Formats: sequence, structure tokens, C-alpha cells
Amino acid sequence: MKLYDYPQAPNPRRVNIFLAEKGIDVEKVTIDLMKQEQLADSYRQKNPACDVPMLELDDGTCISQIRGIVHYFEAAYPDTPPLLGKTPAQKGLVEMWEHLAFMNGLLAVAEVFRNTAKGFSDRAVVGPHNYPQSSELAERGAMRLPNFFKDFDQQLGQNEYVAGTDYSMADITTLVTCDFAKWIKAEIPEDCKNLRAWYSKVSARPAVQANS
Amino acid sequence: MKLYDYPQAPNPRRVNIFLAEKGIDVEKVTIDLMKQEQLADSYRQKNPACDVPMLELDDGTCISQIRGIVHYFEAAYPDTPPLLGKTPAQKGLVEMWEHLAFMNGLLAVAEVFRNTAKGFSDRAVVGPHNYPQSSELAERGAMRLPNFFKDFDQQLGQNEYVAGTDYSMADITTLVTCDFAKWIKAEIPEDCKNLRAWYSKVSARPAVQANS
Repeated sequence: MKLYDYPQAPNPRRVNIFLAEKGIDVEKVTIDLMKQEQLADSYRQKNPACDVPMLELDDGTCISQIRGIVHYFEAAYPDTPPLLGKTPAQKGLVEMWEHLAFMNGLLAVAEVFRNTAKGFSDRAVVGPHNYPQSSELAERGAMRLPNFFKDFDQQLGQNEYVAGTDYSMADITTLVTCDFAKWIKAEIPEDCKNLRAWYSKVSARPAVQANS
Repeated sequence: MKLYDYPQAPNPRRVNIFLAEKGIDVEKVTIDLMKQEQLADSYRQKNPACDVPMLELDDGTCISQIRGIVHYFEAAYPDTPPLLGKTPAQKGLVEMWEHLAFMNGLLAVAEVFRNTAKGFSDRAVVGPHNYPQSSELAERGAMRLPNFFKDFDQQLGQNEYVAGTDYSMADITTLVTCDFAKWIKAEIPEDCKNLRAWYSKVSARPAVQANS
């Protein structure tokens, strides 16, 4: 089994923290995004979505997308700490909050970053196809991010962790989003005290420290 | 248990087909999106994300987002046909392909629809917050959709169903995307023969027919 990885980028970091929390060791192969190695033919044949991370199983099965990879590991390693919920209701809440963190937080930051960064002039969307940057979308992302911070601050005023009482994948995506926001010079606002306290707590976890 | 629903819209339809495939009957409450009932205070208190569908459990737990709802049902009703994969690898592949269908297909159509439809002038993003429409994003969505059709046509040339040998949630999201595309006067291109054959086959399923 091999994990194709680029630890500097936010999406691979989500999987790397997840694996460290579960104590799973996987052989890693670096795909250098700065050299656009994700678009090379040899990698594209394994992963037509041309993104990282991607997990190649010993039988040749290739699983891309964070959701795909974490669900594989959660099911294949049932004796490791669960990060996608234990009960049916918890499983639902983890998926719900992870999706909201991704859609309203991580994508908002990505909308700003990918539509303004110089090196991404025709690479505004992750994947095999080139699309031009959009200044309107960068502006929208910048409008959306403060609402993400405010909404998650409210949720963390009523819950210890993003999806409720237990640390989960929803916390990992939210944490990575808060750090990714620094790439666009944004940070958790001063008045989001619940989110800031939670951020300090989860940032101190050994699995997060080891992937920072 | 109550499912807050608006069966005319593509996202609720994904859950309605999923439930029909599993043979699960749930009490449904209509939230009329045309009247913006999803933004009313009474609904917002249960679901701050202000979208449908949303599932309210008997203990008051509210689970929104398609992913949250389908994972709840998959775990809570283990004797119904699995639609999120059986083995760890299948589970990973279903999540992967469902995510790709959502990101590259359903969102591409939504980018066109929500950024051009007259009734959505300040409602370009699902949720509680208002954002203006973006003509640039509508254009990008229109550029992305043909690539989605082509990429999924390729996948269905090598696999009977979107995520491999078994019908799954990935097929449901892909099917709903193909029908949602008709809202923006787009359809599966003539030369995407694999996707067209798959579309005819899955459209004929009783669970799909009952929710069309």
C-alpha cells in the first residue's frame, strides 16, 4: 500500500493528521505539486483526477479524494480510534460537519487562493482540466470566510468538538482550514473566542504537531 | 423521525432515491424552497445551515447535508441493501466517486443555475448567508460540465456502475446531476455512449422512477 502525498498542501495534511491520530503507518510517495507531477502521465494513469493525496492498495486499486481515503482506513482498521463516529447519529453528524467545514471553510479559502495566486493562472480548479482564474470568485471566497468563522464559533460555543462530544474528522478539516486561511493572510477573528479556544486545544494534539 | 424535504429539488431527490432503494419509509415534512421556508426562524433553529433535506431524529438530533443523512441511514439500517460499499475498498471507492460526481458534476450545474436564475439574484450560495451572483462562475460551470460528462463516460466504459461492480450512492448523485443539467438546457453529449447507456439503465430502476 502506498499513499501519494504532498505534505505541504492542506488536503494531504488532512489525511496525514487522520493517519497519525489512528496510529497507522503507510509508505508515502511524494508527488511534487510545485513541479506539477500530479499531471504526469504515469500518475494520471493511476489517478485520472490528478490530485493528491491518493491511496494505491496492494491489488492496484487506487482511491483518491480525502473522503475515499479516510473511509477506506476507518473500515479497514476497525481497532484504531474511530474518527468518523461510533453510533449512527454520530456518523451522520461527523459527515455533516466535515462537509460544512469543507464547503464553507476550506473551499472559501481555496476560492481566494487559487483565483489569485500567480502560479495558478490557468489552474483555478483542482484536477486534470485547466480553467482560468476568476476575480469574482476570489471576492466571494473572501466574503464567505468570515461567515464560516462565525458559524463554527457558534457551534463550538455549544459543543466541545465540531461534531459534538468527540474529536473527529470534522475537527481535522476545520483545523486545516484555519491554518490554510493563513496562506491568504486571514485568521480566526478575535471575537470568535470559542473557535480560538478550540483551535489552541486541537493544535496541541501530538498528531497535529507531527504534521505542522 | 422526520425528513424535511422538497422533492422537486436535486439534493433532496438524492436522499429520496437512496431511501427508496433501501426500502426505508420516513415521515416527510415539506419545506417550500420557493417560499424560502428554509430561512424561517423555526427551521433555522433546527438547521442553521438553512438547507434541505434535513433529518430530525426522535431525540431531537438534527442531521443535515446529504452525506450526513445517508451515512446515518446506512449505519442505522444495516439489513437494507448497502449503498455506500461493502468492503473497505468499496467504501473508499463509493466516497471517492460520489465526491467527484458532486464536485465536478452537480456543483458545475449549480454554478450555472444559481448564478443565472432570476429568482436567485442574492442567493447564489446554498445556506443562511446571501451572496451576489457571479457571471464568471456561471461561465466556469458551463465550461466544467462537458468535462464531467467526458470523464464519467470514460469511467463507465470500464465499469458497470460509477464506483465499480455495484450500484451505489455514487450512481444516485451522478444520475441526479444528469437530470439537474436539463434545468440549464444541457444534456449528456451524443458521443458519451457509455454514460448514456448507464443513464438509461439506472433511470429505469423503480426507486428512481418513483422519484422522478
